[in-house]
Amino acid sequence: MRAAILGTTGYTGLVLMRLLAEHADVDEVLPSSSSRNGEKLSSIDPGIGDALLAKTEKFGGKLLSIDELTALKPDVVFSALPHMASAKVCGPFFGSSVVIDLSADFRIKDEALFEKAYKQKPPRSDLLPHAVYGLTEIYRDEIARADLIANPGCYPTASLLPLLPLARAGILEGKIFISALSGVSGAGRKNVTNYLYCERDENSGAYNPGKSHRHAAEMAEQLRSVDSTLDLYFTPHLVPMSRGEAATTTVGLKREVEDDEILRIYENAYSSSPFVRVTPSRIPQTKDVLGSNRCDVSWHREGQTLFLFSVIDNLVKGASGQAVQNMNVRFGFKETQGLRTYGEI
Amino acid sequence: MRAAILGTTGYTGLVLMRLLAEHADVDEVLPSSSSRNGEKLSSIDPGIGDALLAKTEKFGGKLLSIDELTALKPDVVFSALPHMASAKVCGPFFGSSVVIDLSADFRIKDEALFEKAYKQKPPRSDLLPHAVYGLTEIYRDEIARADLIANPGCYPTASLLPLLPLARAGILEGKIFISALSGVSGAGRKNVTNYLYCERDENSGAYNPGKSHRHAAEMAEQLRSVDSTLDLYFTPHLVPMSRGEAATTTVGLKREVEDDEILRIYENAYSSSPFVRVTPSRIPQTKDVLGSNRCDVSWHREGQTLFLFSVIDNLVKGASGQAVQNMNVRFGFKETQGLRTYGEI
Amino acid sequence: MRAAILGTTGYTGLVLMRLLAEHADVDEVLPSSSSRNGEKLSSIDPGIGDALLAKTEKFGGKLLSIDELTALKPDVVFSALPHMASAKVCGPFFGSSVVIDLSADFRIKDEALFEKAYKQKPPRSDLLPHAVYGLTEIYRDEIARADLIANPGCYPTASLLPLLPLARAGILEGKIFISALSGVSGAGRKNVTNYLYCERDENSGAYNPGKSHRHAAEMAEQLRSVDSTLDLYFTPHLVPMSRGEAATTTVGLKREVEDDEILRIYENAYSSSPFVRVTPSRIPQTKDVLGSNRCDVSWHREGQTLFLFSVIDNLVKGASGQAVQNMNVRFGFKETQGLRTYGEI
Amino acid sequence: MRAAILGTTGYTGLVLMRLLAEHADVDEVLPSSSSRNGEKLSSIDPGIGDALLAKTEKFGGKLLSIDELTALKPDVVFSALPHMASAKVCGPFFGSSVVIDLSADFRIKDEALFEKAYKQKPPRSDLLPHAVYGLTEIYRDEIARADLIANPGCYPTASLLPLLPLARAGILEGKIFISALSGVSGAGRKNVTNYLYCERDENSGAYNPGKSHRHAAEMAEQLRSVDSTLDLYFTPHLVPMSRGEAATTTVGLKREVEDDEILRIYENAYSSSPFVRVTPSRIPQTKDVLGSNRCDVSWHREGQTLFLFSVIDNLVKGASGQAVQNMNVRFGFKETQGLRTYGEI
Repeated sequence: MRAAILGTTGYTGLVLMRLLAEHADVDEVLPSSSSRNGEKLSSIDPGIGDALLAKTEKFGGKLLSIDELTALKPDVVFSALPHMASAKVCGPFFGSSVVIDLSADFRIKDEALFEKAYKQKPPRSDLLPHAVYGLTEIYRDEIARADLIANPGCYPTASLLPLLPLARAGILEGKIFISALSGVSGAGRKNVTNYLYCERDENSGAYNPGKSHRHAAEMAEQLRSVDSTLDLYFTPHLVPMSRGEAATTTVGLKREVEDDEILRIYENAYSSSPFVRVTPSRIPQTKDVLGSNRCDVSWHREGQTLFLFSVIDNLVKGASGQAVQNMNVRFGFKETQGLRTYGEI
Repeated sequence: MRAAILGTTGYTGLVLMRLLAEHADVDEVLPSSSSRNGEKLSSIDPGIGDALLAKTEKFGGKLLSIDELTALKPDVVFSALPHMASAKVCGPFFGSSVVIDLSADFRIKDEALFEKAYKQKPPRSDLLPHAVYGLTEIYRDEIARADLIANPGCYPTASLLPLLPLARAGILEGKIFISALSGVSGAGRKNVTNYLYCERDENSGAYNPGKSHRHAAEMAEQLRSVDSTLDLYFTPHLVPMSRGEAATTTVGLKREVEDDEILRIYENAYSSSPFVRVTPSRIPQTKDVLGSNRCDVSWHREGQTLFLFSVIDNLVKGASGQAVQNMNVRFGFKETQGLRTYGEI
Repeated sequence: MRAAILGTTGYTGLVLMRLLAEHADVDEVLPSSSSRNGEKLSSIDPGIGDALLAKTEKFGGKLLSIDELTALKPDVVFSALPHMASAKVCGPFFGSSVVIDLSADFRIKDEALFEKAYKQKPPRSDLLPHAVYGLTEIYRDEIARADLIANPGCYPTASLLPLLPLARAGILEGKIFISALSGVSGAGRKNVTNYLYCERDENSGAYNPGKSHRHAAEMAEQLRSVDSTLDLYFTPHLVPMSRGEAATTTVGLKREVEDDEILRIYENAYSSSPFVRVTPSRIPQTKDVLGSNRCDVSWHREGQTLFLFSVIDNLVKGASGQAVQNMNVRFGFKETQGLRTYGEI
Repeated sequence: MRAAILGTTGYTGLVLMRLLAEHADVDEVLPSSSSRNGEKLSSIDPGIGDALLAKTEKFGGKLLSIDELTALKPDVVFSALPHMASAKVCGPFFGSSVVIDLSADFRIKDEALFEKAYKQKPPRSDLLPHAVYGLTEIYRDEIARADLIANPGCYPTASLLPLLPLARAGILEGKIFISALSGVSGAGRKNVTNYLYCERDENSGAYNPGKSHRHAAEMAEQLRSVDSTLDLYFTPHLVPMSRGEAATTTVGLKREVEDDEILRIYENAYSSSPFVRVTPSRIPQTKDVLGSNRCDVSWHREGQTLFLFSVIDNLVKGASGQAVQNMNVRFGFKETQGLRTYGEI
């Protein structure tokens, strides 16, 4: 089993290297980078472990070029490139490798919606019909057969997992308001002033509220496919931590629903999902799942107003971990292979 | 002018000492503490400045007992004690000193509502009719004549300042959902596991959602006095920073309202208020107001759904700063005396 | 293989649970706690993973009492109790289980030195001759035969690994000055004001300098056993992070020594040690080893003045990880089993 | 009194704006920036306060060009520009305004030493004889008469204040080892990966050890002027906080010196210095002085080995605050005018 990484030096790429290195079913890891081709992994990543060095040794323990990658015919390609770049660079691999794309390029099927969110047409609309949305717990069967998997955004992952089972059960109505908090790594490894330590430290606040964040479009399409009457508003906030994401969702209930019924809906939806943990007696905190691929879910109900709480590690379940989970499902490995179910303290 | 502090060694007490020390109209500061009576200020507070040492010198530069305080007949007493303790310890000062109470003991007029929130009857219901709610910008005239000022909670301060002018204008309707983020100092200086560095660092999440937080009752009473049809839900979150609070409020509009009208409402409400800054083109972040007594306010509108954004420093405008602002108003000092309008970087 | 943990609910206990859960050679984990006996693990530790639940299921997935533990005859007992308590509570296990003690009770052989550092006599001086100091890379052979392993302190681990090979080579002389930085978890999970979030956030400084920190005694004894002329001074600093420790050591060289010779000494000392990484071209940073069991080591030389740099994760190589490494050595497992060699990003 | 700022948008420039705005003796503030000339202050700095807006109103409340500045003939010019740029851009002001240069361009008198540290010749060696080193407590008399003040580096400020009085007393000998910790703002507001939030959060470590940091040269020259036998080594560390700096200095004593003698030396040196606080019974922590212009100093002695501890806020006493203090001394204002002596909590 040979796994390639495009865009190794961003945060999701660095996490992918770590996860694939420890993965029992992956024999070789091929990290690549357009900008730093040829550099030694040990010099670009001081945290790198011996397992990764072993799995990259055959190819020199260095960043490979896309041409080198192509020649090596990887079984699976993880693309951790920026949107637009991703679909383009992945070109040579479509059809020959399974592509798990962590960018937004294949997440939204509705081309007009994509264009509105990303101010450009989908870069490869020809492939959109073949792409499967990689929210594993929801599309597990489709993922198992897919050759192009559009790994979801971090906010959609945290938000949709508690919402979709209830929406499918037909008990939600009206407006959905999601207020989410994210650690700074969610913004990527970009050298801009707003992400400097001294700008984000001791600082919190909202950005891109309502329908203006790109992830709002991604969530809206998913929800609409289940219940077209639901109307989603999403307000993210940056908070001073590296990793972790919490979504607090407010939504109305169509009718009186007891807590027991909600619990049953979740149990039915997720009883075979090792990475969703429903915690009725505790509002989950991001550190509960730090470093793990879990999404912990809880709720609070006041009459017909429902509050949903969910937390993930944005770099794991919200990105690289779910990508590996999707690889596991696609290649028939154990779903939890190479992924943690415990949160770091 | 002689100002006393009850409960000096908590975070709000420590901030009060700093503000009063630099205040041009306060000549003497009398810090007290029930538990550490007699200890030198310089030994309990290594950050203490020379100005405070000068203003406490006459009385030994140490923590005084309540008896000593009483004998010294302070002009104003700031109580930074826990609720229930506060009303009790303030006993000797009612009638003789102006009391500015930073606890919850006099914030809620509706006794049943208080009891529901605090699980006890209001400790001094006899004084409730005389207490003025100390949200300065809203009750400035009443505060100017009050001898008992109930300084608002931090969340209510951040939440009500953007809400009340719109509610008074009669343009809001239905449910109000407030999602707020707070630094850890909002919880006070309590030696409990949940507030240890290693528990809150790199950790975020909701607590006491819906109507279960005590501050929800306080806000509900204030809103109800303006528009009894509004129904408030409040979900606070702890985020890893010491100071700062951000409220993101979602509410419906009764009719089509243009952004210009909202701006006009705010300008009318706050044109004479030096500590409310309306920033239509920027969603405020908590660090904008760190260390200042400002509340920065902005909004985002999508059709008839309105999002309000507001930030404060919970220890300043959310507690000790507003208490000093109230003293300024009550004693006819310049409203900004001793208070900053700039945020620290 | 049955492994017991005494003192499960502290930080080192919580990390031990995580490491043992993922350890391929450990079948059952028996967590205990004197104060919370009978409580469900899932309720005391929201981060707990499925692997641990599986390994504790047989005994109810809860905290056991010491009596229950004793009856279950664990193969290995990890004690994460405070010093003095540890030797006492471990009583029933000496002789029947391999005991790996993470407290200080058996770290110092010289009883007078222990008493000076801990203000009490060693609690079980009768067992001191049988205890092996668990700095794995230095005492691997002795550990392989030991039934009582005194797991080193975090500061001694970080400090001694770069120092001992050079001291053994006889090239050091005179005074050794160690300046170390530690994350707050090094102080344990104690409900004291000094470790509250708001006290340690944005705050750094030295404490217990020179020879006054207990770990200075522990290091001094180890160094003295190699070269009795060396005189060690140690100044720790608390810095605002949860985990991680960096030691910067300054020492004189007896003679002119080239960098190549230093590199050779380290290579000879650690070529078979998977957890010591020598990085001549990079001064290591704590995040390089976050979550891993590595100690990264580098140096800088100016004439005959040598600076050594070393970093560990204080909860892993500085405590629970090294304890597991010692178990691996003692029971003949692969030394890296259950331990990471990569640092988290 | 008209004060200009060159390089307003860096951290030291932003702090200068805040300090000068609140300064009772400064009537007008002229902020400039080469790159953002013409932009409104309120748009570049959301934290800006009303006092600054008032003091900049006359000139449009915006960033001015250097030409505009020159025409306005400021009484004092604070240059917060990078080294080399600073001396050049200040050109028009030498001779006409008092220049307080926060860059390194005039800190080192020895041209060879400067060149070794900065890899370039001093940009204006012709002015070096006229520049006074702005360590206020040490060169107060010279500063009072200077038209060009070289504001010291942050590390030299923290390190030299405890060292110089003892060196002058002739009781130190041999090698001096300084181990210092700094918050990230010490590195400036630079968009480089190493200063991103996710790189510095939960991360600590040494950099530029021994004699390789530029500030080592600056300190060495100052020390040498007092006692040429002292040999200084300096190792800085970055720790995860925005502001604050702690220096731990280790040095040998020439003879037996009692603690009382050390205290007397400090008292003699600093009895008239409102910003140096000697705290014999407490090792100072950086938060003690956060936001203040203080340098707190303490020590620990073991025989003839002496440890010195000192803390500053690197943006205040370590940069902009000391610059204002120097303006105060130069223009005959009260030395504490516009500066705090208390630390924020």
